[in-house]
Amino acid sequence: MIHNFGAGPCILPQEVFKQASQAVLEFNGTGLSILEISHRTPEFEAVVDETVRLIKELLNVPEGYSVVLLQGGASLQFSMVPMNLLGESQTAAYLDTGVWASKALKEAKIFGNVNVVASSKDQNYSYIPKDIEIPEDSAYFHFTSNNTIYGTELLEVPKTNVPVVCDMSSDILSRVINVSDFDLIYAGAQKNMGPAGVTVAIVKDSILGKVDRKIPSMLDYKVQIEGGSMYNTPPVFAIYVSMLNLRWLKSKGGVAEIEKENISKSVALYKEIDRNPLFKGTCRPEDRSRMNVCFVMENPELEKPFLKFAEDRDIIGIKGHRSVGGFRASMYNGLPITSVHVLIDAMQDFAEKHR
Amino acid sequence: MIHNFGAGPCILPQEVFKQASQAVLEFNGTGLSILEISHRTPEFEAVVDETVRLIKELLNVPEGYSVVLLQGGASLQFSMVPMNLLGESQTAAYLDTGVWASKALKEAKIFGNVNVVASSKDQNYSYIPKDIEIPEDSAYFHFTSNNTIYGTELLEVPKTNVPVVCDMSSDILSRVINVSDFDLIYAGAQKNMGPAGVTVAIVKDSILGKVDRKIPSMLDYKVQIEGGSMYNTPPVFAIYVSMLNLRWLKSKGGVAEIEKENISKSVALYKEIDRNPLFKGTCRPEDRSRMNVCFVMENPELEKPFLKFAEDRDIIGIKGHRSVGGFRASMYNGLPITSVHVLIDAMQDFAEKHR
Repeated sequence: MIHNFGAGPCILPQEVFKQASQAVLEFNGTGLSILEISHRTPEFEAVVDETVRLIKELLNVPEGYSVVLLQGGASLQFSMVPMNLLGESQTAAYLDTGVWASKALKEAKIFGNVNVVASSKDQNYSYIPKDIEIPEDSAYFHFTSNNTIYGTELLEVPKTNVPVVCDMSSDILSRVINVSDFDLIYAGAQKNMGPAGVTVAIVKDSILGKVDRKIPSMLDYKVQIEGGSMYNTPPVFAIYVSMLNLRWLKSKGGVAEIEKENISKSVALYKEIDRNPLFKGTCRPEDRSRMNVCFVMENPELEKPFLKFAEDRDIIGIKGHRSVGGFRASMYNGLPITSVHVLIDAMQDFAEKHR
Repeated sequence: MIHNFGAGPCILPQEVFKQASQAVLEFNGTGLSILEISHRTPEFEAVVDETVRLIKELLNVPEGYSVVLLQGGASLQFSMVPMNLLGESQTAAYLDTGVWASKALKEAKIFGNVNVVASSKDQNYSYIPKDIEIPEDSAYFHFTSNNTIYGTELLEVPKTNVPVVCDMSSDILSRVINVSDFDLIYAGAQKNMGPAGVTVAIVKDSILGKVDRKIPSMLDYKVQIEGGSMYNTPPVFAIYVSMLNLRWLKSKGGVAEIEKENISKSVALYKEIDRNPLFKGTCRPEDRSRMNVCFVMENPELEKPFLKFAEDRDIIGIKGHRSVGGFRASMYNGLPITSVHVLIDAMQDFAEKHR
C-alpha cells in the first residue's frame, strides 16, 4: 500500500476508486459508461442533485444559500468573485496569506480597487496575521482559509460586517464550519471533495446582482445557479466521483467525525515533529494547518536521505513546495490515519539511525 | 450491446473505457489511481504532452499555432474569444446558424460590436447561409462548423481576409481540415475528443495580444499557453481519457481514415431516410451534417412508436432536440458503423410493419 501525502489532486478512499472504476465500464445499470451518458438523462440529473444535496447536508448549508458546481478551479473564482461582487469604483479587502491569496487579489484589481488589509509575506507566510481591520465600506472581505504551500490555516472567521468570501479549496469538508459566517465559499474539488475538474461555490443569494457590470453568462453565479449546475455540459465524471466521495464521508459520520480524525492525524504528526530532535515545524504553532503539515530538518543535509528513507517505505508526496523547502505532509480526509503512523514511525526510525 | 446515438457526452470506443477504468484503479504502474496523482508528476506531464502532440499530429497543426487544454467548454470560449480578440470599439462578424452560434454572438456583445453577417433562423436553422459577405474591417469572423441541434455542417471555410474563429465542438477530429484556414479553433471535448470536462483551443499565436483590455489570467490564451495547459490544476482524468481516445484514433489510421468511415455512416443513413417513405430529413441536403443526422416522420403519430421500436433494439439517444422534434442520430467517431446498420434495419423493419 502506498501512503500518498500529495498536496492535490490527492488520495481519495480506495472504495471510491473502485466504484468510479466500475462506473467507467458501466454506470448504475444503464449498460453505458458514465463517460458516454448524456448529462440530460434522469440518471445523471440524479447524480448532480445528490451531489448538491450531500454538500448542503454535510456542511449544514442554511436557507438562502445556493450550492453550484462549476469548472476552472479556484483560479477562475479569483476572477469570478470580483466580477460578480466588486463594482468598478468599490474596494475589496483581501488578506494576503500566501501565493494563492495573492493571486486572488491580483485578479480582483482588474475589476475594482483592492485593499490588502494584512500580509504575512514578511515571514514567508509562516503565520496568519491577527487583529486585522476591515474597513466597513469594503465591498467584501476575502481570505484563504488554508494555505497549502505554507501549512497555515485560519479556523476562525475574522469579525466583520462586510460580506465574507473564502477560498476554502484545501480544507472544505475537513472541519465543521458555520456557513452563515460566510457570504461566498468556493473550492476546487481536488482535495477533500473529489477529483480535479470540478469546483464548488456556496453563495448567499442576496449578495448577487448588485454590480452594474455585464457579466459573461458562464461567469455569472446567477446564471449558473439558475442552470442548476448545468448551464452547459458539466464535468460529468468529476461530479460523479465527488458524489461517491461525499457518500463515503457521510457514511463515516460526516464532517464532525472526519474533523476528529483530522485533528488526531495532525496532532500526532506535529507531536512527533516537536519531539523529534531531527525535525522542526515551519509555522507558528497557533496557525498550523491540519491539512498540510510543513516541516524541515535541523540539518538540511539529512533531507534528501530522509526523503529516500520514506520513499523506501512507500511514503510519497512529502517533498515540500520549493518556496518553503523541506517536507509537506498533506493529510486530507482520504488519507488513513495508518499512513500517518507509518510516516511517524519512519521519522522515529530515521532519528534512531542518525542519533 | 447498446447503440448509443446520444448527442454528447457520447460514445467512445470500448477499449478506451476499459483502459480508463483500469487507470482509475492503477495508473501506468505507479501504484496510484489516475485520480490521486499530482498534475506536477512527470507521469502526468507526459500525458499532457502526448495529448497535445497527438492533436497536433492528427490535425496536422502547422508552426505558429499553439494547442492548449482548458476548462469550461465551448460556452466559456464564447466569452474568451471576444475578451482576447475584440477591442471595445471593434466589430466582429458572426454567422448565426443555430442556438450555439447565437449564444456565442450574444456573449461577444459584452465586449464589442457584433455584426450578424447572415442567419438561417428564418427556417429554423435548417440550412447554412451561402455567399455571405464579411466586412474587411471585422476584428474576426466567427462560425460554428457543425450545428448539433439542427444537423447542418459547414465543411468549407467561407472566404475572407479577416481572422477566422471556429467553434468546432461537434466535428473536430471527424474530418480533415486545413488548420491554416483558421486563426482560432475551439471545441468542447465531449464528442470526438474525449469525455466532458476538457476543452481544446488551437490558436494562431500572432493574433494574440492585440486588444487593450486587461484579461483575467485564466481567460487569457497567452497565460494558458505559457502555462502549458497547466496554469492551474487541469482536469486530469478528462485529459487522460482524451489521450487514450486520440491514441485510438491514430491507431485507426488517423483523421483521413475516420473521415471515410464517417462519410460511409452518414451516406448510409441519409440514403435510408431518403428512400424510406416513412421518414424525411429536416435539412437542406447540401448542408447535411455527418455528425448529427436529423429526421422526422411523414406521419408524426408514428414517432413515439418508432422510438419505442428502436429502444427495443437497444438503440438509444435518437430522440430529436425539442426545437426540431423527431429524431437525431449522432454518429461521432466512436460510434461503430454496425450501430448505424442496426438503426437502418430498424427503420426498414418498422416501415415493413407499417406499410
